[in-house]
Amino acid sequence: MRISELTQRSGVPIHTIKYYLREGLLHSGALSSPNQASYDGSHTQRLLLIRALLEVGGLPIATIRDVLAATDDSVHAVLNQVSRPSTALMTQETSENERGGLVRDAILEVDALVVRAGWAVDPTAPARVAAADVLAWMRATGRDQFADQLGEYADVAELLANLDLQALSTLDDTSNIAETALIGIVLGDMLVSALRRLAIESLTANGSFNNDR
Amino acid sequence: MRISELTQRSGVPIHTIKYYLREGLLHSGALSSPNQASYDGSHTQRLLLIRALLEVGGLPIATIRDVLAATDDSVHAVLNQVSRPSTALMTQETSENERGGLVRDAILEVDALVVRAGWAVDPTAPARVAAADVLAWMRATGRDQFADQLGEYADVAELLANLDLQALSTLDDTSNIAETALIGIVLGDMLVSALRRLAIESLTANGSFNNDR
Repeated sequence: MRISELTQRSGVPIHTIKYYLREGLLHSGALSSPNQASYDGSHTQRLLLIRALLEVGGLPIATIRDVLAATDDSVHAVLNQVSRPSTALMTQETSENERGGLVRDAILEVDALVVRAGWAVDPTAPARVAAADVLAWMRATGRDQFADQLGEYADVAELLANLDLQALSTLDDTSNIAETALIGIVLGDMLVSALRRLAIESLTANGSFNNDR
Repeated sequence: MRISELTQRSGVPIHTIKYYLREGLLHSGALSSPNQASYDGSHTQRLLLIRALLEVGGLPIATIRDVLAATDDSVHAVLNQVSRPSTALMTQETSENERGGLVRDAILEVDALVVRAGWAVDPTAPARVAAADVLAWMRATGRDQFADQLGEYADVAELLANLDLQALSTLDDTSNIAETALIGIVLGDMLVSALRRLAIESLTANGSFNNDR
């Protein structure tokens, strides 16, 4: 297909497609004449993947480029990539004011959890600091009742991780696993978040947990 | 305390505190002299809450203002508020191209799930469309193996919702429940996301699920 049809199918404007081609986020089309390239389903797929990571996952374009370049690596490497931006955001000022101590305590709390759960986690894993940072925010804002359920949330997170790996195990196209893990986990976070809100809506729909109780 | 100490304790710059005061996100301090206000722990708490919603939750400041104004309402009302922005983002172009049909199919799929799960969900619930939208992205990017586990992810989401409500049930300060629900759920999403990645790291650390298998 021509670039105009690729635009229509993917919902990505032509000038953005050209930018992705220049930046190496999208592979070149086959030259059908010296001035014209022909694109196929693999190009539509890749553009939808970039849109999903950008629009739903909220990842910056530079991260998406690094991550797509890394999909020849293991699932482990890709996960580390995709966990990085939010962590950088959340830990940019741990040394500052009252929160600094809370973050240090929270890291100890997460480490104790990892030991209890029997998880094998590298100390440099971005998700370790990310979890501690959220925990510290919960305590800083006086929401200890959520932070105190850390172990229970971790049990549920392990159920989710097993579901994710179960989905991955059905793949037979091995070259595709890291990329699928990436998109599955980024979108998976959004899916569970939406379903969790639906369930809360249902559980609170009968008027319990409002301020009139 | 003076505004300079409030800045130090909360990590929020003075000009931002003044902006929040003008916009009604932060309640005024007690006047200690005609030109000087005095602040207390409730001001520090509120500023940390705003930072958490802004920096960790990624909510826009206008949403935070609306949501904080709504915390006199029920948990239900607050949840609807906080689910709105991401939904608006994700559904802005459902009529466009190939994805339109997928979104319509996904809404039917989510509705069938809600019936099976026995959830009481309002058809206008933003989380209903948000869930369908993520599902449609999974299918659009060819990640059906994740979308096909919708029911299993919903079961886990219900476990999370029950944990959330369990944390809320320990509160005795009723005026505080909606605000706590809000922060607990926004931060709770980030916590579960980080823990899920930790668990996946652990499960893939032995080298399974890489491209060499």
